Amino acid sequence: MSRFLANRFTYMDAYIPGEQPSDMEYIKLNTNEMPFPPPDKVTATVKAELDKLRLYPNPDGIRLVKRLAEFYKVKPENVIIGNGSDELLAFAFLAFFEGGVAFPDITYGFYPVYAKLYDVPYQEIPLLDDLSVNINDYTAIGKNIVLANPNAPTGISLGLDDIETIAQSNPDHVLLIDEAYVDFGGSSAVKLTQRHENLLVIHTYSKSRSMAGARLGFAIGAASLIEDLNKMKYSFNPYNVNRLAQVMGEAALDNDDFFEEKRHEIVAVREYTKEKLQEMGFILTDSKANFLFCKHPDIGGFELYSKLKEKGILIRQWDKPRISDYVRITIGTKTQMDALLTAVEEIIMRKKL
Amino acid sequence: MSRFLANRFTYMDAYIPGEQPSDMEYIKLNTNEMPFPPPDKVTATVKAELDKLRLYPNPDGIRLVKRLAEFYKVKPENVIIGNGSDELLAFAFLAFFEGGVAFPDITYGFYPVYAKLYDVPYQEIPLLDDLSVNINDYTAIGKNIVLANPNAPTGISLGLDDIETIAQSNPDHVLLIDEAYVDFGGSSAVKLTQRHENLLVIHTYSKSRSMAGARLGFAIGAASLIEDLNKMKYSFNPYNVNRLAQVMGEAALDNDDFFEEKRHEIVAVREYTKEKLQEMGFILTDSKANFLFCKHPDIGGFELYSKLKEKGILIRQWDKPRISDYVRITIGTKTQMDALLTAVEEIIMRKKL
Repeated sequence: MSRFLANRFTYMDAYIPGEQPSDMEYIKLNTNEMPFPPPDKVTATVKAELDKLRLYPNPDGIRLVKRLAEFYKVKPENVIIGNGSDELLAFAFLAFFEGGVAFPDITYGFYPVYAKLYDVPYQEIPLLDDLSVNINDYTAIGKNIVLANPNAPTGISLGLDDIETIAQSNPDHVLLIDEAYVDFGGSSAVKLTQRHENLLVIHTYSKSRSMAGARLGFAIGAASLIEDLNKMKYSFNPYNVNRLAQVMGEAALDNDDFFEEKRHEIVAVREYTKEKLQEMGFILTDSKANFLFCKHPDIGGFELYSKLKEKGILIRQWDKPRISDYVRITIGTKTQMDALLTAVEEIIMRKKL
Repeated sequence: MSRFLANRFTYMDAYIPGEQPSDMEYIKLNTNEMPFPPPDKVTATVKAELDKLRLYPNPDGIRLVKRLAEFYKVKPENVIIGNGSDELLAFAFLAFFEGGVAFPDITYGFYPVYAKLYDVPYQEIPLLDDLSVNINDYTAIGKNIVLANPNAPTGISLGLDDIETIAQSNPDHVLLIDEAYVDFGGSSAVKLTQRHENLLVIHTYSKSRSMAGARLGFAIGAASLIEDLNKMKYSFNPYNVNRLAQVMGEAALDNDDFFEEKRHEIVAVREYTKEKLQEMGFILTDSKANFLFCKHPDIGGFELYSKLKEKGILIRQWDKPRISDYVRITIGTKTQMDALLTAVEEIIMRKKL
């Protein structure tokens, strides 16, 4: 730390992303990426765009914004694109949550970090014992709220009726729904944004669209909310999304078959893996995301993580109250999951000897 | 504006980027991009990287950081990369300028915007009548300072002795030098960062490296300053630079011949254009950037801008005290500048009739 840093950041802990070790080749099941690259028709668009690399991207990303609006059946003024959904989350915290925000005690670890960055008071509301969200805890509380749906790292999904109840009962506050994982079995609240001006939905291309390396996310909501987010963007980094991501983002929507096929494949492999883990004695949440969240009575989360890493398989684990026994396993290909299952079985068997 | 936006943003004016009209093909001399695309050896690296697009980028961008450290003869801990230099400027305002910051009244229009975004008190110090910076205005003032060097839109450059005097005489405050345009004839303060722990230098790939569309910038300074900027980054968007920009950023340093050739070509075309404009009666600053800043006794800035736009040539002009008579002309190819000169001559001649 330098002696020039603002005092309020001295004790701020930044977010710690999943590890990206380069010491060897791992089966990488720790950061919820897709195991499939995006289709050639998507990446091929980059080649033509390289000719324009000397030029700034269109700051409003209007072509992609229009295409997203068409895809999600909203208007262009209901859409903004960002440098990954993380950037849009940051803009929302800065724009709307000055008065405070509530979110679950177990959720995406970045929410408290944004709150600290922008000096936003926050309340962490405990999940129920089964790690699900208690709707009553968010109904008519008169607060801004962020909910990941499905939640991370639990994978548990809320229904749209519940989202609507929360939005409706907190009409003077913003309800932000982070739908990073919604394409693997959850229900998107995008259509509810048409009738709730306080509802903001954030999506990413990093998960179901296989484009984590391109950095592209978007938010959908009332035109007035999107206008405010644009004000943040134009006061921070108007050229926030690079040209190559913008053209690939359009092409991804134009090649939707691939997306439909692959997200269903992930769901099928998830259910297969879940069944096998249950047979080994694991307890799992009902994940609707591209990961499983599970624990085993015979082994702690950190021990399982460490032993799998020795075997060349990366998963994620948190040293955090209530969930330190759990691990989060990204769904890879069937082959990768079979390798995981074999490794896990060996580890558990050895514990029992 | 929504009714949910924080009050302090109600009257904040965002930055307005240069126009990017799509109604017709313009000779685009309004946003200081290079007229040459990056070399094939740089863009070719993208193709191999597309295979990894499903994976998040390395958040610390360590390969590129190491390569930049080598290139600029500093250590990796002295370097951070960003989503364009604008993002790094924003991080610096947030991290270091809580107590206030001073910058010239005529400079990059984004500085007051960042200040307003993060509630940073700022002082605009008038340039001298010849639009140059008066060093005495910044010596031992006990304030954080931002100086673009060369300055924009004047193009006037400060010498390293002056930078050092300012850094040395304000030891308890950060001096941020924005070197977006330094490769066209200015002197880089990077080497001074080795002996002044309060000096931070910010660079971009958007100008001399022909990569505005890729969004890539970097900052160089004392390890403690870089550590603080990393804290901001990891609290905002850890995966802030996309994979494709990172590999191209490395390749650009590996193919330095192109960069050396093209930046000198821009300087030569700038001096040629300047001479021709002087012959027509223009008054110009001594620009060391990839643009010229000039005015003509017979025509106002807005009128010249408008008449050139009618002829399919975009330049930039500001409705701002002291500089409303001026226009800023990005240096394009020799052919583009000849087209500009012909158009300007016609406009001026017609005025005189």
